[in-house]
Amino acid sequence: MAPIQNSRVIFNSIPEGYPVPGETLIIENESIDLDNDPLGGGVLVQIVCISVDPYLRSRMREPHVPSYAPAFTLHKPIHNHAVARVLRSENADVKPGQHLYGWFDFAHYQIVDAEGLKRMRILPEGSGVPWSVYVGVGGMPGQTAYYGWKELEPKKARRHLSGETIYISTAAGPVGCTVMQLAKAAGLKVIASAGQETKLQFLRELGADVVFNYKTADLDDVLKEHAPLDIYWDHVGGKTLDTVLPRMKVHGRILIVGHMSSYNNAPDPVYNLDRFLALRIKMLGFLVIDHDEKYSKEFYEVVPGKIARGELKYNETVVRSLEEAPQLILDVQQGNNFGKAVIVLADD
Amino acid sequence: MAPIQNSRVIFNSIPEGYPVPGETLIIENESIDLDNDPLGGGVLVQIVCISVDPYLRSRMREPHVPSYAPAFTLHKPIHNHAVARVLRSENADVKPGQHLYGWFDFAHYQIVDAEGLKRMRILPEGSGVPWSVYVGVGGMPGQTAYYGWKELEPKKARRHLSGETIYISTAAGPVGCTVMQLAKAAGLKVIASAGQETKLQFLRELGADVVFNYKTADLDDVLKEHAPLDIYWDHVGGKTLDTVLPRMKVHGRILIVGHMSSYNNAPDPVYNLDRFLALRIKMLGFLVIDHDEKYSKEFYEVVPGKIARGELKYNETVVRSLEEAPQLILDVQQGNNFGKAVIVLADD
Repeated sequence: MAPIQNSRVIFNSIPEGYPVPGETLIIENESIDLDNDPLGGGVLVQIVCISVDPYLRSRMREPHVPSYAPAFTLHKPIHNHAVARVLRSENADVKPGQHLYGWFDFAHYQIVDAEGLKRMRILPEGSGVPWSVYVGVGGMPGQTAYYGWKELEPKKARRHLSGETIYISTAAGPVGCTVMQLAKAAGLKVIASAGQETKLQFLRELGADVVFNYKTADLDDVLKEHAPLDIYWDHVGGKTLDTVLPRMKVHGRILIVGHMSSYNNAPDPVYNLDRFLALRIKMLGFLVIDHDEKYSKEFYEVVPGKIARGELKYNETVVRSLEEAPQLILDVQQGNNFGKAVIVLADD
Repeated sequence: MAPIQNSRVIFNSIPEGYPVPGETLIIENESIDLDNDPLGGGVLVQIVCISVDPYLRSRMREPHVPSYAPAFTLHKPIHNHAVARVLRSENADVKPGQHLYGWFDFAHYQIVDAEGLKRMRILPEGSGVPWSVYVGVGGMPGQTAYYGWKELEPKKARRHLSGETIYISTAAGPVGCTVMQLAKAAGLKVIASAGQETKLQFLRELGADVVFNYKTADLDDVLKEHAPLDIYWDHVGGKTLDTVLPRMKVHGRILIVGHMSSYNNAPDPVYNLDRFLALRIKMLGFLVIDHDEKYSKEFYEVVPGKIARGELKYNETVVRSLEEAPQLILDVQQGNNFGKAVIVLADD
C-alpha cells in the first residue's frame, strides 16, 4: 500500500487563558506507510480512542515551568491516555489485533518504538465494555477516583452509625461520578455540585444526597445547611476551597485532585488557612501515578467488571474526528462537556 | 490566718488587633482565706510559674467563634499551663508540697475542685530542672515539638545518605528551638529564622545550618539558595507559607503549628495552593492535645532528663509579677521576648 495521510493535533502556541482552537492547537498531516515504515522493535498502531482531560491545560506551558505532568513540546503532536489497536508488531509479546493502553498521540496512526512500548499496558479482549471505558472510568480518571478513595480511608456507615459526609466538586465528571458511587456504596452522605441541569439530574440518579448548581447556588449557604464535612474532594481550588475550609469537621480531610479555578486564570486568593490548626485539617495533593503500583492490579480486577455489570455508571461526550479535538479540549476547560470527554476514531 | 488579697489577671475586653495592657487585660484582687476557704474535695495551690504562649491571643475572642482552644470568659481570670504547689488538699492522692501541672489562673492562689483536679498531672520532685521548664521545653511547647516531630516521621541522615531539609519559622521560641535540636540530632539540614540578632545567635549556637532574620532577609532568596524543603514547620502562615509552597520538594510535608500572621491581623491571602497537586504536598494542622495519649508517657521519660543533662537547650524571658503579665503577653505577640516567656511567682 502506498503512503497515506495521517492527521495529528499539533501544539502550535502557548495560550494565555483558555486554549484557542486553530491557534493553540492546529491539525497537520504527515505521510505514513502502514506496510513499510520501520518500527524500531516496536509496533504500529491505529488509535481507537483518546481521552480529553482537564489537566491537559497544565501541559500547554513553557517547558521550564515545573509541574506534575511534562509540558507539551511546541510544534509536536500532543498526547494523552488512549487505546490503540496493534496493526504491525516487531515485539514478540505484542500481537496484531491486540489493544494497548498508554499515552498516544492525538493522531490516527502512530509508531511506538521498543522503549515506548514498555510504558504500555495490553488490555484484555472481550471484557464486555467499550474501549472508551478504558480511558474513562476504567482508565486514568477512574483510577484517580479509586486510588484516592482508598487513600482517604473513609468511615463506612454501619448499623446504628452513620457514615461520613463528603463534598465533591465537579461531581459529574468521570472522577467525580466514580467517587460519588463509591461513597454512596459505602453509605456516606454525598454533597455534589455541577454547572448544568443535565449533570445535576445525572447526580440525582446516582443517588447523591444533596445536589446543587455551583453557578447559581451559594456554596456557603449549601454547606451551612448540609455540612460540616469529613471529606472535601477538590477538583477546583481557589474560592471553592476557601469557602469549604471553615465548613470542615475537626480532623477533616481534603484531597486536592485538580485546581480547575487556576488552569486558565490567575489563582484566587485563599484566606481561611487558619482553619487548619483550629480543625486539625489534613490536606493532600493527590496524583494517580504515585499510587499505581499499590492499586492498579486491584483496579483492573474490580472496576471493568463493575462497569460491565452496570454497577458503576458513567456518561461520555464523544466526538468522532481529530478535527474536533481542539474544540473539545476547550469545552472541557469551560465545563461544556457532560461526563468523560473522548475522541473515538475507530470502533474496534 | 485572716483572708489576704489574691491578685489575678482578668479578661476585660475583646481586642481588635493586638491586646492592650490595662484595657484587654487588667489586674483585679479578690479576697482568699488560705486556711479556711472550702476546697470542694480539691486542693488549694500557690502558683509557681505560668506560661505565656502565642496561642493565648486566639482565646481573646467572642465565645461563639469556634477555635481549637476555648475562648476566655469576659471579666473572669485568664488561665494557661502552669506549675502550682499544693498548700492544702482534700484529695487522698494529692499531698501538700507536691507540684501540679495543668491549666491554672493567672493568679497567686487558686482553689481547684475535685473535677478540675482530674485534669492535672503531679510532677516528679527533684528532677534537677527548674519548675519553669515544665511549662516550656518540658511542657506544652516541648510536647508540641516532640509529638509533631514524631508525627512527621523525618528521614534521618545515614551513612552515605544525607537527611532531609527542614525550615522552621520562629525557630528561637520553645517549640522551634526544640524541633531544631531534634532535627539536628537526626542529621537534618536545618534552615531557621527569627527576628532579632540575639535569637539568631542562639540558633547558630544550637547548630542550625542556615540562619536568617525574616525581617531583613528575603525569604524567597534564602529558599532559592538552600531549599527545596522536605519539611516546613509553620508557626506563621500567610505570606510565609505562600512563599514556602513553591519551594517544597515532591511529597513535602507541612505541619501547621501556629499562624502568628493572623492572630492580630486579617489573614494574608495565599495564592500558591496549586503547588499541592504539582508537588503532592501533605499539610497537617497539628494540635498537641490530640497526640497526648500517644506520646506523653515517652515525653516525660525522655525530655526532662535531656534538659537536666544539658542535651536540650532553651532560653527564657522571665517576669516576676502578675502586674507585668499583660505587657509580656503583648511582647510575645510582637516577638519581643526571647525564648520561652514565663511568669515566675514563687521559687519552689
